[in-house]
Amino acid sequence: MQEQYVVGVDYGTLSGRALVVRVADGAEVGTAVHPYRHAVVEDRLPGSGVELAPDWALQVPEDYREVLRVAVPAAVRDAGIDPASVIGIATDFTACTMVPTLADGTPLCELDGLRERPHAFVKLWKHHAAQPQADRINALAAQRGESWLPRYGGLISSEWEFAKGLQLFEEDREVYDRMERWVEAADWIVWQLCGSYVRNACTAGYKGILQDGSYPSADFLEALAPGFGGFVADKLDQPIGRLGDRAGGLTAEAAAWTGLPEGIAVAVGNVDAHVTAPAAQAVGPGQMVAIMGTSTCHVMSAEVLREVPGMCGVVEGGIVAGSWGYEAGQSGVGDIFGWFTESSVPASYAAAAEAAGEDLHQHLTRLAAAQEVGEHGLVALDWHSGNRSVLVDHELSGLVAGLTLASRPEDVYRALLEATAFGTRVIVETFRDSGVPVEEFVVAGGLAKNELLMQIYADVTRLPLSLIDSDQGPALGSAIHAAVAAGAYADVPTAAKSMGKVRRGVYQPDEARAAAYDELFAEYLALHDHFGRATGTMRRLKAVRRRAVARRLTATEGEWR
Amino acid sequence: MQEQYVVGVDYGTLSGRALVVRVADGAEVGTAVHPYRHAVVEDRLPGSGVELAPDWALQVPEDYREVLRVAVPAAVRDAGIDPASVIGIATDFTACTMVPTLADGTPLCELDGLRERPHAFVKLWKHHAAQPQADRINALAAQRGESWLPRYGGLISSEWEFAKGLQLFEEDREVYDRMERWVEAADWIVWQLCGSYVRNACTAGYKGILQDGSYPSADFLEALAPGFGGFVADKLDQPIGRLGDRAGGLTAEAAAWTGLPEGIAVAVGNVDAHVTAPAAQAVGPGQMVAIMGTSTCHVMSAEVLREVPGMCGVVEGGIVAGSWGYEAGQSGVGDIFGWFTESSVPASYAAAAEAAGEDLHQHLTRLAAAQEVGEHGLVALDWHSGNRSVLVDHELSGLVAGLTLASRPEDVYRALLEATAFGTRVIVETFRDSGVPVEEFVVAGGLAKNELLMQIYADVTRLPLSLIDSDQGPALGSAIHAAVAAGAYADVPTAAKSMGKVRRGVYQPDEARAAAYDELFAEYLALHDHFGRATGTMRRLKAVRRRAVARRLTATEGEWR
Repeated sequence: MQEQYVVGVDYGTLSGRALVVRVADGAEVGTAVHPYRHAVVEDRLPGSGVELAPDWALQVPEDYREVLRVAVPAAVRDAGIDPASVIGIATDFTACTMVPTLADGTPLCELDGLRERPHAFVKLWKHHAAQPQADRINALAAQRGESWLPRYGGLISSEWEFAKGLQLFEEDREVYDRMERWVEAADWIVWQLCGSYVRNACTAGYKGILQDGSYPSADFLEALAPGFGGFVADKLDQPIGRLGDRAGGLTAEAAAWTGLPEGIAVAVGNVDAHVTAPAAQAVGPGQMVAIMGTSTCHVMSAEVLREVPGMCGVVEGGIVAGSWGYEAGQSGVGDIFGWFTESSVPASYAAAAEAAGEDLHQHLTRLAAAQEVGEHGLVALDWHSGNRSVLVDHELSGLVAGLTLASRPEDVYRALLEATAFGTRVIVETFRDSGVPVEEFVVAGGLAKNELLMQIYADVTRLPLSLIDSDQGPALGSAIHAAVAAGAYADVPTAAKSMGKVRRGVYQPDEARAAAYDELFAEYLALHDHFGRATGTMRRLKAVRRRAVARRLTATEGEWR
Repeated sequence: MQEQYVVGVDYGTLSGRALVVRVADGAEVGTAVHPYRHAVVEDRLPGSGVELAPDWALQVPEDYREVLRVAVPAAVRDAGIDPASVIGIATDFTACTMVPTLADGTPLCELDGLRERPHAFVKLWKHHAAQPQADRINALAAQRGESWLPRYGGLISSEWEFAKGLQLFEEDREVYDRMERWVEAADWIVWQLCGSYVRNACTAGYKGILQDGSYPSADFLEALAPGFGGFVADKLDQPIGRLGDRAGGLTAEAAAWTGLPEGIAVAVGNVDAHVTAPAAQAVGPGQMVAIMGTSTCHVMSAEVLREVPGMCGVVEGGIVAGSWGYEAGQSGVGDIFGWFTESSVPASYAAAAEAAGEDLHQHLTRLAAAQEVGEHGLVALDWHSGNRSVLVDHELSGLVAGLTLASRPEDVYRALLEATAFGTRVIVETFRDSGVPVEEFVVAGGLAKNELLMQIYADVTRLPLSLIDSDQGPALGSAIHAAVAAGAYADVPTAAKSMGKVRRGVYQPDEARAAAYDELFAEYLALHDHFGRATGTMRRLKAVRRRAVARRLTATEGEWR
């Protein structure tokens, strides 16, 4: 009997990656990456050159189709398999990334007359221009005591469907009126593949505020902005597909794009972080998956519904159908280490690293690894990008305490590594204290390569650390969903057992180091609560900064005249 | 009538500088520097090679005599004057730097049989091996409520006469018993010049705990260590000379060394920081002189005696005869900026600085100067070397808050400059609140060259900033004392009016910037009181660090065996 294969496609921020995976055992047999032609549109619209305001981040939907036409066939060629042996395809996407379309899925930015309208384009997850709208949503929801608010740790993000939709409504009513569907890109790409619009349970819950079968009420929306009351009924509401379900069969058109057989299973859409859990065989209770890169996203399934303070969200079937999916996050992790190596390490270290054939991260890590716990005498707060979980405050900022004239770059670097581990421990303990205990910490993402960092996380959290055993976690996770949608496995957990890849307990906590870290964690926690809860120092510093920048701009303007 | 001249000799940590000054107007007409042959002895004794313990710092007294033989004649030659026109000589010294001698002033380390004994050498000011003794002095004094303790802000330093003397007593009783005098180097060099041992009022008060005519009692000393009760009477007590008084006439031997006329006036000894006040024409009430270098020393005269929390000391006639002299200090200033540029600024900045023909300090200063107050969004604590005034706690450490991924080196650099200015404002306000108001801030020392720093100090303190108008403040101050000792002026304030040099009010506070700084200072003060008074975070971090270092050393030792 011929081997069967599935294709997983991971849509990232700058490119799409296709991965061909063997259904029987998850072997990764071929891959290809295709960058988006227009990358992220932040300054001017392509074609028209219309200028964008600050904090805007758009994309072009045709770039997503191109990944299907280029990367999928290339991956199949790379695998050297017969395309006829492919039985399903699935995708995961950045979220919340929103496409305004007609009722047939045509993006508004592809319509004559709308190509010069910024609001007709895709709003990428990191489009941050809807903060005023998010602030009003949160204020009104808190005031009215909306029951869904605690499901999101008390805060709806400006990145999500309602804030971005309200911005569109208020800033370009004509485009809003022309828009017949407000579609997650995760679902739009599935619609392109199978011709059916199915909203996936993951983004509908985490980004679309779908809780217990209901969205925020028309009454709430109308109170938010007169005329916005019909937003859900008119633009958003749609049948929900469970993760791993078949959304439809591959259309003839999409079969032509991809070179895959017409009619094969197309899975319901998914999100890059969440889809990684089955790829790491971590869909059971107590298995927290951390996708660690520039930031960290934590996902965990549980059989119980609990309201965890400061989580990003809890969604029924949000990670695997049949469980409650929890999400939390640390806004800054790898980007803090990156910022430090770029901004704060002297030339002598750069030279020594080069001489040793290391990059700066490797060099600092090696030097830092030679230390005993606490030897640097430092403790830091990892809030350079604010704090998502559990304080939910983006006005917070980073701090380093304990500096002396003997403090060296590797000391501060290690303190920053540790600070992110302490931040993780706060999240783990908050979940535990809310009745959702964490038993295993499973790491995916680029930072898993740093052995010192991994050992620190094991020691600080006193948890065994497992590592996903694939460099393509999201694409592998999508492939698993494709296999389930194609009927090769009964459900995602079953498929994950055969196709997922994990090395369990690679790092074990060392009791002596863990005890030493308890002392430093106590200091971290004291700073955490002092600056995060008791005093408004950092919020006031940001306010001072904003006013100072405004003064300078005014002064500069004065000089021009 | 022939012009008259005086010679001031400034004994620093690594060299001695002679300056020839015209009596009439303070014109600096010639100078010469001579480095100490043995510099600072920290590892092994010269000659014998006997190894020293950590934290020891010794010097060789013959090196001081060599300055008289080399630098003084060279300065006179540089001036091109007739040596016969020199009417007096005066010196200033680092303090507390202690020479153990026989009754005739012969240093013990020059005696056969004692050349291999570390305790027979000069203990330099920065000899820091007497901390256990200082701790016991402070504990006992506090317990007994000794009246002199508040005159030193509640803390006797390990650098001072009693702690160093007690260390000698306890660690080498034979040398202690041979020692007939325990002499400040400031007085020893005068003894070498005029053949008389006169204790100067400045070091006797600030370093020797002479208050209201008495030293710590024999009873106290005996309680401190049995057998130590006679320390004051046997080794220390000596007639006190007022600053600016004539200690004696230049001996024939010293006249031969220096090439100066025998019999000319030799002034009572003095200390480098304190002697700078008259050189800057700042000996009146309300004129605070800050000698700003790696650290900052503040000196100010007042007609009233007040106990100022956290000052280094208040001494009658300690700066000028007839006034109370106050001293305060910031343990880290320029050395923090130096540490930052060396440890925390990336290669790209080093390259840009080089391209612009700037050193890193100039480069960072120029970039920082372009900012509005508060634009960096940061606030720092300047405690990288601990805090002297007003918290008197060397277990404190530095802190930076408000860091983001957008924070740049010039931002942190400016925040550090500002932190030291905030530290100065705390001192100024503490003096004011204790009934010793500061009206003018007079800056001497190398940091006066940094215009941004100076303007920040003016804005932060809301005080006019004056600058000493000489690069040789201490040597000029000594020359002023020489002129007074020679009878050319009635007293030091009168001489300072003619010979001192200051540019008054060079920097004026800007009200808009001062108001903006009030906000940041409030944040600094909140951190200052939280970390300096309310919580023991930094003390615990130091303890954690010490234990970690000990663990590593034990581990390493284990590997050796």
